[in-house]
Amino acid sequence: MGIVGLGLIGGSLGLDLMAAGVPVKGLVHRAATAERARQRGLVSEVSTDPAVLAGCAVVVLALPLDRLLDPEPGLVEALPPAAVVTDVGSVKGPVLAGWERRLGGRFVAGHPMAGTAAAGVEAGQAGLFVGRPWVATPSERTEAAALEAVRRLAERTGARWITCGAAEHDRAVALISHLPVLVGAALLRAADRGAGGGEVGRLVRVLASSGFADTTRVGGGNPELGTLMARGNRAAVRAALARYREELAELEALVEEEDWPGLRRSLEECARLRPQFLGGE
Amino acid sequence: MGIVGLGLIGGSLGLDLMAAGVPVKGLVHRAATAERARQRGLVSEVSTDPAVLAGCAVVVLALPLDRLLDPEPGLVEALPPAAVVTDVGSVKGPVLAGWERRLGGRFVAGHPMAGTAAAGVEAGQAGLFVGRPWVATPSERTEAAALEAVRRLAERTGARWITCGAAEHDRAVALISHLPVLVGAALLRAADRGAGGGEVGRLVRVLASSGFADTTRVGGGNPELGTLMARGNRAAVRAALARYREELAELEALVEEEDWPGLRRSLEECARLRPQFLGGE
Repeated sequence: MGIVGLGLIGGSLGLDLMAAGVPVKGLVHRAATAERARQRGLVSEVSTDPAVLAGCAVVVLALPLDRLLDPEPGLVEALPPAAVVTDVGSVKGPVLAGWERRLGGRFVAGHPMAGTAAAGVEAGQAGLFVGRPWVATPSERTEAAALEAVRRLAERTGARWITCGAAEHDRAVALISHLPVLVGAALLRAADRGAGGGEVGRLVRVLASSGFADTTRVGGGNPELGTLMARGNRAAVRAALARYREELAELEALVEEEDWPGLRRSLEECARLRPQFLGGE
Repeated sequence: MGIVGLGLIGGSLGLDLMAAGVPVKGLVHRAATAERARQRGLVSEVSTDPAVLAGCAVVVLALPLDRLLDPEPGLVEALPPAAVVTDVGSVKGPVLAGWERRLGGRFVAGHPMAGTAAAGVEAGQAGLFVGRPWVATPSERTEAAALEAVRRLAERTGARWITCGAAEHDRAVALISHLPVLVGAALLRAADRGAGGGEVGRLVRVLASSGFADTTRVGGGNPELGTLMARGNRAAVRAALARYREELAELEALVEEEDWPGLRRSLEECARLRPQFLGGE
């Protein structure tokens, strides 16, 4: 088993596999990262030389989305010719297209959906994937044996295995993961600029409570991750934004028209909807 | 001391005052509520007859916003002629205007900002206000002694006393409390309708994680409260929505134009902004 990148996802996966007695080879960029990964016991062997992957039957590309979309040639060349290769990127359409072109049906596009607040070689933690969705988006070309190998890997971590089409995955995560970032970010900007610098600007900061904190948590989160998601999933994010604008305009019209029974019915619908979305928790 | 309404705010206040040895008279609507309030020890005397308030030096109107804006004549008549009267409504401009017209400078508009998930006679809990803002919005007419009496009451509960203008309060809470409800509600609707009923509709529900749950918590919250807030604070909520629309459009334009450095800078600004709003926590 090989893991390329030992940040939150790669490092956590390494810890889980090591705990299960599976030998794991890690490939990282910097010598200091390799040293720290060794100290933390994330993998059994770690190197900055792509040759470390020789002999691996399965290789997990645990890299940020930009490096999945535009991989280093040295990495691609170092992948063992017969290995099953999978990734962990949060957008699947363009990743699948690029890697299937390179590797054919032995590439399996994957997305383990686990917490993303921490990053780097210190972030990995055992048990990160327990009960979380691990999505795979096979195409018609994906080999059944390759998909099965990744499924076994995912289930070994305690994750919930889910398969769907790459386009469907990307539309879904645009709505539930990428849109909330922009929605929360716009709220932070509106509260800041709408209040201005005077008394109201002081009050919004002093009076904001847990409701505001929760609504803006992902919007005020990792800027690099938010940008990569929007960039990698641009078409679906644009569609999600357009739909969001429509829904907000409908609510705004109810306020405008002072249609309070209508607003109440809409908010009642939302209160009924929300519990349907808490299954992934 | 008198409290009109023994829901979350009134009941919690009653418990805190009782614990401090202050005799409290409660006025409620229904006999069953009076009985339960008695059993829970929320107040020392409770009745459905407004005459119970006779002799109270301070009366707290712990009523929902609609009943503060359109109070029952019997209640207004029963308020002792010299008592300091204060309220707990989440919108201050129209409440202050109405009650100042009725009572003059002995009315103090107030807004203890404590959790609102629970409601009813079972909701009251000791210590609810500890460390939370208790805002008062005095006008030029407000009597200094009346304001001081309410300040002593607020500080007795452990709340943080804050004064500001009613218009400034209403603009601030539109941005940080009322806007998040509509923002989160629109997100729930967009995720539901944008996904449709097929495979993507199933995926959004299965894959939604804590980020989506947090962003929609208040949007999927109490529909009656959300409607009352928008209704009572309509002008400020409309202004907040207009500002929000602009901010979202700017972020959308960055995605549209594929200005990824620009999007990243905007999200970095949001990440810097958010901690400024966590002081009220």
